[in-house]
Amino acid sequence: MDVGYHKSFESSFESADTTGKVITCKAAVAWGPGQPLVMEDVQVAPPQQMEVRVKILFTSICHTDLSAWKGENEAQRAYPRILGHEASGIVESVGEGVEDMKKGDHVIPIFQGQCGNCICCRNEKTNLCQRFGVNPLKSVMVNDGKTRFSTKDGNPIFHFLNTSTFSEYTVLDSACVVKIDFEAPLETMSLLSCGVSTGVGAAWNVANLQPGSTVAIFGLGAVGLAVAEGARARGASKIIGVDINPNKFAKGKAVGITEFINPKDLGVPVHERIGAMTDGGVDYSFECAGNLEVLREAFLSTHTGWGLTVLLGIHPSPMLLPLHPMELFNGRQIIGSIFGGFKGKTQLPKFAKQCMCGTLNLDEFITHELPFEKINEAFQLLIDGKSLRCLLHL
Amino acid sequence: MDVGYHKSFESSFESADTTGKVITCKAAVAWGPGQPLVMEDVQVAPPQQMEVRVKILFTSICHTDLSAWKGENEAQRAYPRILGHEASGIVESVGEGVEDMKKGDHVIPIFQGQCGNCICCRNEKTNLCQRFGVNPLKSVMVNDGKTRFSTKDGNPIFHFLNTSTFSEYTVLDSACVVKIDFEAPLETMSLLSCGVSTGVGAAWNVANLQPGSTVAIFGLGAVGLAVAEGARARGASKIIGVDINPNKFAKGKAVGITEFINPKDLGVPVHERIGAMTDGGVDYSFECAGNLEVLREAFLSTHTGWGLTVLLGIHPSPMLLPLHPMELFNGRQIIGSIFGGFKGKTQLPKFAKQCMCGTLNLDEFITHELPFEKINEAFQLLIDGKSLRCLLHL
Repeated sequence: MDVGYHKSFESSFESADTTGKVITCKAAVAWGPGQPLVMEDVQVAPPQQMEVRVKILFTSICHTDLSAWKGENEAQRAYPRILGHEASGIVESVGEGVEDMKKGDHVIPIFQGQCGNCICCRNEKTNLCQRFGVNPLKSVMVNDGKTRFSTKDGNPIFHFLNTSTFSEYTVLDSACVVKIDFEAPLETMSLLSCGVSTGVGAAWNVANLQPGSTVAIFGLGAVGLAVAEGARARGASKIIGVDINPNKFAKGKAVGITEFINPKDLGVPVHERIGAMTDGGVDYSFECAGNLEVLREAFLSTHTGWGLTVLLGIHPSPMLLPLHPMELFNGRQIIGSIFGGFKGKTQLPKFAKQCMCGTLNLDEFITHELPFEKINEAFQLLIDGKSLRCLLHL
Repeated sequence: MDVGYHKSFESSFESADTTGKVITCKAAVAWGPGQPLVMEDVQVAPPQQMEVRVKILFTSICHTDLSAWKGENEAQRAYPRILGHEASGIVESVGEGVEDMKKGDHVIPIFQGQCGNCICCRNEKTNLCQRFGVNPLKSVMVNDGKTRFSTKDGNPIFHFLNTSTFSEYTVLDSACVVKIDFEAPLETMSLLSCGVSTGVGAAWNVANLQPGSTVAIFGLGAVGLAVAEGARARGASKIIGVDINPNKFAKGKAVGITEFINPKDLGVPVHERIGAMTDGGVDYSFECAGNLEVLREAFLSTHTGWGLTVLLGIHPSPMLLPLHPMELFNGRQIIGSIFGGFKGKTQLPKFAKQCMCGTLNLDEFITHELPFEKINEAFQLLIDGKSLRCLLHL
């Protein structure tokens, strides 16, 4: 990674003191469902109490951005809005009371915040946060219910997922910003902001996967492949990838997937094939597709007695879980997972260091790179299933 | 407890050597769905390889017997049949290869066997057994697919739940018989054969409930009250009992329930009331009613982030789980539990000793006692909700 790049950036960054001032910068603004993002000059207010203003250096697009951009859920629509939640950057200034970060710190935003004080933050069993938990309906800051973004005319531009990273500068609650090592490569660190942490954390924190375990992963997007990479790093003996897109298989091999199943090529249900491959079922299955039929196959693919299915996919369908209560008496469990179970502020710095040390290979996840201005092209790459992550350079 | 009773029984028992012979004895035979059981002379064959013949001293009736007696599930109907699975007794003789028990040992039958060799028995995460797991469809012995019971005319009488304890003598796979301490009171030990182990084990093994935890129990039959007793013994700070039968409340107090909710008296959903009573929800809820609406209330009654709902009730409805997959992302978990997670043969002897030491108060669970001949009266007491357990003396 080009550390020199950041160094030169930082020196130019130091020269302009914008602390306490409104910053005018470029942002990709969503004006309506499915409409191409428009690169606009926006105004970014200074951070208020316990807030941080961050200069975003890299951002990428994940399916949650895609879903919000399409406006799939009407209740979540709020325009104009700045989307984006997977990114990395440098602190430009901090608001009153922020003591764990200062100007110049390298940071990654987290959509699942950690206030540190609520009943959930104080409980080691969960990474939810009652104040700054992810909430797709939220479009303003917690402090005052207002936005920090505005158009040149002073009209508010809404926030997204506590982060809004499709902007050269963004303001976040400090609970949603994680300081990482200065030497960590910010290009790949941006992946820890969502996809990689979600997938690897599901394997490490939620499943607590042990060496020799068998694993099936349903849906080989960036999150599914991150599960595979996490499982590989933990010494899984068998990692079965399931996807209807055979183009995913080459990439899958690079992150440790040992066997592939394309449901379209099978004459039997996927769980039957997996049962036959694994003496009755895998120890862990991961549902990364957000599809209820897939969820049921993932559930039945695990071994009775101890199989655990971890849900990572977002399920937009209003249909209920396709499981009968008595099926839970076979000893199979199912569990949902947000942000890989990571308590972001306390656990991601260590995770970032593990990534720096080569425990995980993150380079495979960035399949494309484009300048920020070409963000609509990056959206199209994801829609077409051509990219895992297209890193946008700001 | 009257230990002298057992001693005198044993001496008379020693005098008649029935080893290797067919025994003719009394059994309560079910001839058809819902028909009163008929006390008949039946023939009980000697135990075959790895089987044990047990003289039953005490047995009681649980809702699974009731359900089978009614023939609620057509696929499970098999007549004539000897029902019953909660009991205690003394080994009369053992078949070839049985080394962990001998004539005269005090034992309790377990419907959820433990062969010790299968992939599940060798996995500490589960108490399922691939050879002798509970299976309501099974009505014959595993060894040869035949019955050990027959009528005087030599026609087979079917088995039930690996146990068939409504008989003076029964034959079980040794995997389904647990040897307990000679000094343990067989009257209450019979409760460990099903209801008490199921409830206490759900609190201890499945939830692994810690001191200070908050608990809600939905359905205050014997199993639900056993959950309460287990939670009390573990130091739960709040144990909320939910039942539509207010008569259950007096008994509930005796086993540690601290607060009661009768859903019929509420103007709001139960989970809202429980949330208000517990700062957002209980740590653990237990569904002991076998009702899907109750299941949903139990799920929503736990705290987001770490709430765990343990299913104990049998759900005869074909309807699926009334939960949306996205609801699992709130950090609430749901898990099914059979026989309280106990691996019967290895864990029940210690559990029996804990009961002898007064860790648990089991006397509250036996509300009625009757001679074996009055078994149909005992069924009626359970149907009418008047008894928790009616102990039948054989």
